[in-house]
Amino acid sequence: MKADPRGTGSRTPGTATGGKTVPTVPPAPTADRRTTVDVTALLERGRTLATPVLRAAVDRLAPPMDTVAAYHFGWIDAQGNPADGDGGKAVRPALAVLSAEVTGAAPEVGVPGAVAVELVHNFSLLHDDLMDGDEQRRHRDTVWKVHGPAQAILVGDALFALANEVLLELGTVEAGRATRRLTKASRSLIDGQAQDISYEHRDRVSVEECLEMEGNKTGALLACASSIGAVLGGADERTADTLEKYGYHLGLAFQAVDDLLGIWGDPDATGKQTWSDLRQRKKSLPVVAALAAGGAASERLGEILTADAKASDFANFSEEEFAARAALIEEAGGREWTADEARRQHTIAIEALDAVDMPDRVRDRFTALADFVVVRKR
Amino acid sequence: MKADPRGTGSRTPGTATGGKTVPTVPPAPTADRRTTVDVTALLERGRTLATPVLRAAVDRLAPPMDTVAAYHFGWIDAQGNPADGDGGKAVRPALAVLSAEVTGAAPEVGVPGAVAVELVHNFSLLHDDLMDGDEQRRHRDTVWKVHGPAQAILVGDALFALANEVLLELGTVEAGRATRRLTKASRSLIDGQAQDISYEHRDRVSVEECLEMEGNKTGALLACASSIGAVLGGADERTADTLEKYGYHLGLAFQAVDDLLGIWGDPDATGKQTWSDLRQRKKSLPVVAALAAGGAASERLGEILTADAKASDFANFSEEEFAARAALIEEAGGREWTADEARRQHTIAIEALDAVDMPDRVRDRFTALADFVVVRKR
Repeated sequence: MKADPRGTGSRTPGTATGGKTVPTVPPAPTADRRTTVDVTALLERGRTLATPVLRAAVDRLAPPMDTVAAYHFGWIDAQGNPADGDGGKAVRPALAVLSAEVTGAAPEVGVPGAVAVELVHNFSLLHDDLMDGDEQRRHRDTVWKVHGPAQAILVGDALFALANEVLLELGTVEAGRATRRLTKASRSLIDGQAQDISYEHRDRVSVEECLEMEGNKTGALLACASSIGAVLGGADERTADTLEKYGYHLGLAFQAVDDLLGIWGDPDATGKQTWSDLRQRKKSLPVVAALAAGGAASERLGEILTADAKASDFANFSEEEFAARAALIEEAGGREWTADEARRQHTIAIEALDAVDMPDRVRDRFTALADFVVVRKR
Repeated sequence: MKADPRGTGSRTPGTATGGKTVPTVPPAPTADRRTTVDVTALLERGRTLATPVLRAAVDRLAPPMDTVAAYHFGWIDAQGNPADGDGGKAVRPALAVLSAEVTGAAPEVGVPGAVAVELVHNFSLLHDDLMDGDEQRRHRDTVWKVHGPAQAILVGDALFALANEVLLELGTVEAGRATRRLTKASRSLIDGQAQDISYEHRDRVSVEECLEMEGNKTGALLACASSIGAVLGGADERTADTLEKYGYHLGLAFQAVDDLLGIWGDPDATGKQTWSDLRQRKKSLPVVAALAAGGAASERLGEILTADAKASDFANFSEEEFAARAALIEEAGGREWTADEARRQHTIAIEALDAVDMPDRVRDRFTALADFVVVRKR
């Protein structure tokens, strides 16, 4: 049986996320141009432009906060020695500098926006890891494990303040508008974390609730990243709103792919354990979609997960036990539904670009970044 | 022997806080006019203007954060029933709305600034109480005790974001300038908390370090409160800087008085335990000044406090034991030095007002608020 977790015949009008007919592959018109964009170079450009400014901003923090933050970013190890940390995929900085080009401005115009978005993202990681009790991030002990809870709170606060400072010291009207959008995104991040915490204590979470939470936790900041350079370049509010729409749906596609990788990802590529999200009992999209789908596999999954929540030996479960749960999720249609959802959100993101006047070269790059997000393996 | 904790002959040039000759009472010229200002009415005006806007802002938070915040502000009790909490002295809102009048604007113009400053102040209380492990605030259990650490972190973050939102949604150039100043003050608050935490682990803290920490924790936000209404009213940068100077030194005077009340305050008036700061082993101004003063009482105090830091039965110390420590602090000159310091900072604050062109009526009110801060009993 195929999953229809929204329970209204998915893709019909009136559902929370729209209701368009969705192709299973990205639409044709832009496909020919895609191969010409070097996504690796695009990501590298964002990283290269943003990192020195980010490091200079973090260097402003008073000791010991500067050191704690440098550890968090992977620039030093726990002993204070220089490290060459995994800086992540750097999709956000790439989007921020690219969005400046929408207005005809140089990519550099988007750099304070890229830095501010990275600071807010990392503020939320520092606080979320502490709230969630997560001990590992990017293959290293989290800040609260190494430097204690107080430093995790304090340095998170400092990065949040610094984000606004980096923008507002530009002293322009555009900077004020950009900060306002960043503040809105920050509040969404916080709302999403509040939902995440409250869902942990519940047996069942609906697909709509899961999508809303993921929209807050991932969509809002990618929305801001996709528009902030344009705002700094002087784009009008409508253009910025439309770029936010692109980024928001790109974020939902990104998160759907993340949720797939969290269960079926190749550990060698993701750097995470096998069945990572299942081990953490995460109510991610494939799980909630499978539970909402109905049918024998869905019901069996529900019974098993309810029992798991009380199982005292959960930590000792074998590979086979997690594999069996993953198989049930797939049988109930959760995997396929989530892959469809990623493609659907990807399409909405790309179609949003049609409403913005921008150079073809810039549009192709936005499209290529969206493609990258859905095909990535890590 | 009199305390000379700066060790350079106090009040000489080149010390951290200036080096003026200081009268032991406020200067004469404004004294005649002071009696005409009704400080209670002035505080009430700030509270009356700011509270409804503050409550409306907090109401925007998603559940359960709205409830947690309402508990923190004293609007509801732990069971969710309406409460008539102690809203504090409300010096900051009074200053913010008053500062709008410097520019000839109505006090209402300062209201978003007053609300933003209150939100930042309460963000810092929520996080500091958790970091410091403080279980009581305003005679009630702190948020982390009642709602758990995650909610204290999350709601603190939300109030911080909301502060910027309340200002930036005004959408004016002035709002951008005000937010930039608020962000600067927020970073100082965070720096001050970082210093406070690091000093806890040290045997000795110098008077300069203590003043710097108190300037960050108390001075910076009172500085922002004293200028933010003026900024929103269109004041130029020089005027705003000068009003910040008034507020910064008023904050140091405020904290010096707080430090005196923390040891010698009347429990019936302060609502705190006797010898409150001594019970918490706080390295407040009277303590660090007494330790820095030299002489027999100072040395004896140092020995006793060093022993106290290791004493396993410290929690069971008697009234008499704390009284003896307070007497030694006084004998070493720590009490007198701190009272002098409060007067000195009060004078600097009032003199700063001379550099700003404003209606006499407004100047008198700033002066009256400064007087209130140093004579208060709670």
